[in-house]
Amino acid sequence: MSQLLEQLQWRYATKKMDPAKVVPQDKVERIIEAARLAPSSSGLQPYEIISVSNHEVRSRIQAVSHNQSQITDGSHLLVFAAWDNYTPERINHMFDLNVSMRGGTNEGWEKYRQILLTNYPARSAQENFEHAARQAYIALGASLIAAAFEKVDCTPMEGFEPAAVDAILNLSDKGLRSVAILPLGYRLSAEDWLEKLVKVRRPTSEFVTEVK
Amino acid sequence: MSQLLEQLQWRYATKKMDPAKVVPQDKVERIIEAARLAPSSSGLQPYEIISVSNHEVRSRIQAVSHNQSQITDGSHLLVFAAWDNYTPERINHMFDLNVSMRGGTNEGWEKYRQILLTNYPARSAQENFEHAARQAYIALGASLIAAAFEKVDCTPMEGFEPAAVDAILNLSDKGLRSVAILPLGYRLSAEDWLEKLVKVRRPTSEFVTEVK
Repeated sequence: MSQLLEQLQWRYATKKMDPAKVVPQDKVERIIEAARLAPSSSGLQPYEIISVSNHEVRSRIQAVSHNQSQITDGSHLLVFAAWDNYTPERINHMFDLNVSMRGGTNEGWEKYRQILLTNYPARSAQENFEHAARQAYIALGASLIAAAFEKVDCTPMEGFEPAAVDAILNLSDKGLRSVAILPLGYRLSAEDWLEKLVKVRRPTSEFVTEVK
Repeated sequence: MSQLLEQLQWRYATKKMDPAKVVPQDKVERIIEAARLAPSSSGLQPYEIISVSNHEVRSRIQAVSHNQSQITDGSHLLVFAAWDNYTPERINHMFDLNVSMRGGTNEGWEKYRQILLTNYPARSAQENFEHAARQAYIALGASLIAAAFEKVDCTPMEGFEPAAVDAILNLSDKGLRSVAILPLGYRLSAEDWLEKLVKVRRPTSEFVTEVK
């Protein structure tokens, strides 16, 4: 089995985390860095991460997240927040960053910029948000894999009230909407009912179709 | 730098693949296995992968994908297809598989099943599809990371006509809708304009907010 598959087998949606343990800062940073390096559509990276270690803020988020214990038993909560819309400013910012980092532009790149500027802002905010949210999930996937490599436990969660989390973190002021949260911590094996259960996935025969 | 971050730095959206090279079957299988092991909301895995090596079928997909060369220059095309809706049958199938693999059920699990059966099929097909599509992107993220570990190049693409791809692969008969495609192959460095350019990402200061 490859190193990556070993990590994917090791990880699971940890149900009980040890409130006495803290994830070291360098590990948190590498877990976030994996999200930052993840690819996204046209390279726009239409999402941000809010890394919450503050216990009181996590308690407030927990209260609008079915009271899931990992949110405060872990030491950090990563909130994945997608852009609420694609705007010309956001598109231009990424294209300009690209020009700046690569030391110049060219006709093809500027043409591509114009295509996005023409097409994206003309779509509804909801359609653009849904598109941005999908990209954020690639980054979420990268972070949960990164956590496994760091031997840090995490639990990807959608079971929260997005509008309430957005309000707690003032996300709408930044044009962001929370789409997933990821508590980071360490499993408390004695109290975690899921740890010992077998991982359940559909068999390959039901998951893949080959067209040869 | 961690092993994972090295892989994320190594990979890029390969623009020109070598049509003479074929990705070995065991590598393709591990790239798909990473997607199969990826987590998803409630463990429903609301997506499948169609692995297309057939050249003629890939040519037809290429024709509805802005003629992007990687689709036929690579040796395999992974089509990530999300469920078009959450149905009681699909939900029950995964809950039953869980019960079967874990050798029994319990009150909490059956209560959770009923919550999903009550809530998901009542939502619109489009809302459910969007939710399923997000999950598929976690799996997409796992596969593109797996490809990097295998030193296989890949190019995640959304630039295709989903309805046309669905028709070519008869996906609607299976209740699936294509959401992303991933050609697998090997870079042809001499003809790939992107390979030598620096990877562009927003700086960490623009990507992460810490709430301490």
